[in-house]
Amino acid sequence: MSGILRLSHAVIRVPDLELAHAYYTEVVGLIETARIADGDGSVERVYLKAWDEHQHHSIVLQQAATYGLDSLGFKVENLQDLDRLGEAAAAAGLEIERFDPGALGPGSGHVARFTAPSGHVIDLVWGMAQVGNGLPLNNPPPAPDQLKGIHPPRIDHIFLMCEDVDGITAFFQEVLGFRLTEQIMADDGHQLVTFLERTHTPHDIAFITGPNGGFHHVAFWVDEWSDLRRAADTCAYHGVHIDAGPTRHGATRGCGLYFFDPAGNRNEVYTGGYWFDPDDEPTTWTEAEMGRAIFTYEGQVKPSFMTVHS
Amino acid sequence: MSGILRLSHAVIRVPDLELAHAYYTEVVGLIETARIADGDGSVERVYLKAWDEHQHHSIVLQQAATYGLDSLGFKVENLQDLDRLGEAAAAAGLEIERFDPGALGPGSGHVARFTAPSGHVIDLVWGMAQVGNGLPLNNPPPAPDQLKGIHPPRIDHIFLMCEDVDGITAFFQEVLGFRLTEQIMADDGHQLVTFLERTHTPHDIAFITGPNGGFHHVAFWVDEWSDLRRAADTCAYHGVHIDAGPTRHGATRGCGLYFFDPAGNRNEVYTGGYWFDPDDEPTTWTEAEMGRAIFTYEGQVKPSFMTVHS
Amino acid sequence: MSGILRLSHAVIRVPDLELAHAYYTEVVGLIETARIADGDGSVERVYLKAWDEHQHHSIVLQQAATYGLDSLGFKVENLQDLDRLGEAAAAAGLEIERFDPGALGPGSGHVARFTAPSGHVIDLVWGMAQVGNGLPLNNPPPAPDQLKGIHPPRIDHIFLMCEDVDGITAFFQEVLGFRLTEQIMADDGHQLVTFLERTHTPHDIAFITGPNGGFHHVAFWVDEWSDLRRAADTCAYHGVHIDAGPTRHGATRGCGLYFFDPAGNRNEVYTGGYWFDPDDEPTTWTEAEMGRAIFTYEGQVKPSFMTVHS
Amino acid sequence: MSGILRLSHAVIRVPDLELAHAYYTEVVGLIETARIADGDGSVERVYLKAWDEHQHHSIVLQQAATYGLDSLGFKVENLQDLDRLGEAAAAAGLEIERFDPGALGPGSGHVARFTAPSGHVIDLVWGMAQVGNGLPLNNPPPAPDQLKGIHPPRIDHIFLMCEDVDGITAFFQEVLGFRLTEQIMADDGHQLVTFLERTHTPHDIAFITGPNGGFHHVAFWVDEWSDLRRAADTCAYHGVHIDAGPTRHGATRGCGLYFFDPAGNRNEVYTGGYWFDPDDEPTTWTEAEMGRAIFTYEGQVKPSFMTVHS
Repeated sequence: MSGILRLSHAVIRVPDLELAHAYYTEVVGLIETARIADGDGSVERVYLKAWDEHQHHSIVLQQAATYGLDSLGFKVENLQDLDRLGEAAAAAGLEIERFDPGALGPGSGHVARFTAPSGHVIDLVWGMAQVGNGLPLNNPPPAPDQLKGIHPPRIDHIFLMCEDVDGITAFFQEVLGFRLTEQIMADDGHQLVTFLERTHTPHDIAFITGPNGGFHHVAFWVDEWSDLRRAADTCAYHGVHIDAGPTRHGATRGCGLYFFDPAGNRNEVYTGGYWFDPDDEPTTWTEAEMGRAIFTYEGQVKPSFMTVHS
Repeated sequence: MSGILRLSHAVIRVPDLELAHAYYTEVVGLIETARIADGDGSVERVYLKAWDEHQHHSIVLQQAATYGLDSLGFKVENLQDLDRLGEAAAAAGLEIERFDPGALGPGSGHVARFTAPSGHVIDLVWGMAQVGNGLPLNNPPPAPDQLKGIHPPRIDHIFLMCEDVDGITAFFQEVLGFRLTEQIMADDGHQLVTFLERTHTPHDIAFITGPNGGFHHVAFWVDEWSDLRRAADTCAYHGVHIDAGPTRHGATRGCGLYFFDPAGNRNEVYTGGYWFDPDDEPTTWTEAEMGRAIFTYEGQVKPSFMTVHS
Repeated sequence: MSGILRLSHAVIRVPDLELAHAYYTEVVGLIETARIADGDGSVERVYLKAWDEHQHHSIVLQQAATYGLDSLGFKVENLQDLDRLGEAAAAAGLEIERFDPGALGPGSGHVARFTAPSGHVIDLVWGMAQVGNGLPLNNPPPAPDQLKGIHPPRIDHIFLMCEDVDGITAFFQEVLGFRLTEQIMADDGHQLVTFLERTHTPHDIAFITGPNGGFHHVAFWVDEWSDLRRAADTCAYHGVHIDAGPTRHGATRGCGLYFFDPAGNRNEVYTGGYWFDPDDEPTTWTEAEMGRAIFTYEGQVKPSFMTVHS
Repeated sequence: MSGILRLSHAVIRVPDLELAHAYYTEVVGLIETARIADGDGSVERVYLKAWDEHQHHSIVLQQAATYGLDSLGFKVENLQDLDRLGEAAAAAGLEIERFDPGALGPGSGHVARFTAPSGHVIDLVWGMAQVGNGLPLNNPPPAPDQLKGIHPPRIDHIFLMCEDVDGITAFFQEVLGFRLTEQIMADDGHQLVTFLERTHTPHDIAFITGPNGGFHHVAFWVDEWSDLRRAADTCAYHGVHIDAGPTRHGATRGCGLYFFDPAGNRNEVYTGGYWFDPDDEPTTWTEAEMGRAIFTYEGQVKPSFMTVHS
């Protein structure tokens, strides 16, 4: 078995789709690949990808009454994985829906959908349309010209909230095959925050204690620390509200910058981290050191980081 | 099946083991984990690891009459992989040797050994001893203090030479499950250089046309471009001969610096690159663009890069 | 006339001289050049320099009952400058003291001392002892080996507090020949913060509204943004309290990291900025934009930045 | 006396003015401020500035039959400097021409012109028109939006060739008030290369042994090492021939990238270096170490660096 390959995409709710579209294309620098309208002709979904991604979309903006996460997707290595992981989720008591390519909109592949015990809708995906990264397959330059804004090359990880972090962590490990890399433990022995991976990086997904279905942030990869300053300059230039950073995390050892889209959804650009082997031991942080675990330099978690989410 | 996880280690031949040891610990900044002596008490092998690796060794220095590569190893995800991949290699006509943990020296795990058609001795490894990365598992700082020299966090890839690049590439794809990410094609339709991966990076191993059993370089990962300048400063300070860089590669899109150990084995420190999905298309370079494929900025391959190897 | 060349040094008060010494040599990475003891043999002053400075000292630690700034010095280009600038200060109503080389301690040169209207003791210095930067004058490497901690190459600027920023700014312009590069204006037309230079950089000294004789921070130069992260890592490793950053300033356009010595004196490492010609116009910030003027990314001044000083 | 402030501008000869214009605006990212035509209406001069310069121009492209340097300019601090330095040059036996503002074209100020003993035409300039750096003087962002190509903030230094380096170095020191920072000495005791400054940086101008009137390169400042890679990427993207780098220089300790304009004039982007006090000692390199003095990492000067010039 191979299983889940990586985070595939996030569907993000935004009340003002045109404003969100402008932000994600001009400031974040994502590339639009499709849009769909509802019955009366008004746009209700915009499909976006980071420039170096080959697949059809990694961010979908969904017209909605309020902000938050609609759903997220993981890419699996082959079609059998959909069957096998779907069956595992069903055996764990979840209801599974299957969709054929295109059934869930432009570019969509085979999908097995379920709602995780944390309240998040999760799509396992295989066969999303490939659209290329804008570079020729022969003798390419290092990057396309005229990329806009921050232009991260790809999506990196997602950070969610739920009431029972122990429970969802066990579910991701036992049912979906994730490995635990780091955890912040409450003094009472519960997991406050957990970091889980399939890509041998510090995290593809993380959970922090909060309301079920909660969305803390989605993160894009950038190649190095100097890109975080450029991202912060871009945010500052466009008046985008920066929540924290550029800074270093204790947990994951990566560096990041947090900022908000116009609807209030938190974004991160992230770099660094480490390689994690399946036989490596997870790192544990105590509740007393949670500040340093999240923000190494500040040594404490700013209140907005815990209280502002969707 | 999961299969090969990543490059595990390289055993490098050096005529002057003390000199090589000083270089790999003081300049490269690797950490010694073991040494073994032969019958008369003189040291014949030194085991080294990069600081952030948890396993016992990634570089082994082997006392030998001349420089070059003794063998290399790939880590597999579980013991069944050894059986399965060993059987696949046997089915391809190769002779397989199996070793129990410790049989091949300090820290060694279960090993399936064969000589690839390219003339390189390859160990598939599972269960090498874990020694940790020098950081505590509870509330760790971002890095140990007092690291020396370049101190890359880990091994990244290996670059080998052989006569039949088409043949070895097919072997790595079909028998060992590697994926082709990039290739430089001769005008006559043969593969001049191929890049193959298991970690979804641009390469874990690459082959370039040359003598069978040839060793071009072993590369260590560093986190960013500024680390390449620090590595070059370190080399310059210690009088280490720099072969090329800091520069950018066309193929792999990464940035690197090449330099030689005292025996003449080429090392690289490398950063950048991209994520490669199993369903992504490989990139192809023409022979006319080989210069730019190897060295984007120079646009040509310096003669030493092709003629100096072991 | 040539006049003031650059900031020469700062004499900083510390209650625990051994602790401060350990911090400034191990964490900041300054180099001790001398120490003097008082009558009973206990050390009362330690002289330090940044590694690439040629002069005897740029930071002097002064045993004192509490933290704060004892005095600061500017280097002038020649001895006539001492006479001329001393006379100008005297003509402005200040009392001038003159000292011969050595009279003020190890390495000290010719000094003209006065207390500025802001309450700060200022030494104009010419002829401080030259001790070299640790590199040979023939065929040097880029840097000495074995530098410790952050090891900035040199002192950069100093940031002081006083009640009448308009007044001290006029004094520095008219009497000492400084040029105004930037200013933050209160809505009532007073200068809240001013930035003044002699080196064609954004600032060699700055004044912010506060108590007379107040010391906000002394800053060391580092070459680039990646050095700020390394400095922050060093602070985090040693448990040094970081006040703000790594971040970018609106005023001066530079990037910096603020942190505290064990006595509570604020330090900065700073990079970036711009070249300022004598015929360039100063930049003006409004009170409403003061947050962005100080911290571009945060868009607001954290309370500690204004309230914690000495 | 104050004297020469900094390098003001270079007038560069190009046979194909439209091609050179496209290169300097799209690849280097300079900004056009004026152009003038000759009698038949064809453009013969284009005036350019780097984005963060406030003055009218720092690069002038001059239509000419071949490539090379037409003239260069230094900015002086005030009008009396023109008189005084002009008189000093006249006393040294040179013929001085004086021009009023505008007499030498758009934006030109008061000029004292002479031909140095090295064969280079030098303008001392005061009062060139100020056009601003594109940022508002109130509450500015860190940089204008939509800068193109490499977009260095300003000109940094110029590197010239002449037969008698000893002689021109003495002239620059004694007549123009420059300070010697570094020198490469031939075994026979002559100066092969000299580095001279007025800005307390490692060099505003340098001379290397070669033909009189020779032009080796003009350099633009960038803020850090990561900008050199971005510059190299930009060159590679546009097919601009890179001559050397990104690399570090031994002399000046700076880092640079060399590349050619379409006419064959060499450009550099440069960063790093150090502060030089008037009482610091110059650094001396031996002829045997010239390779390391120019290119620390390579340890040798590539032939093109010495043979290709104008």
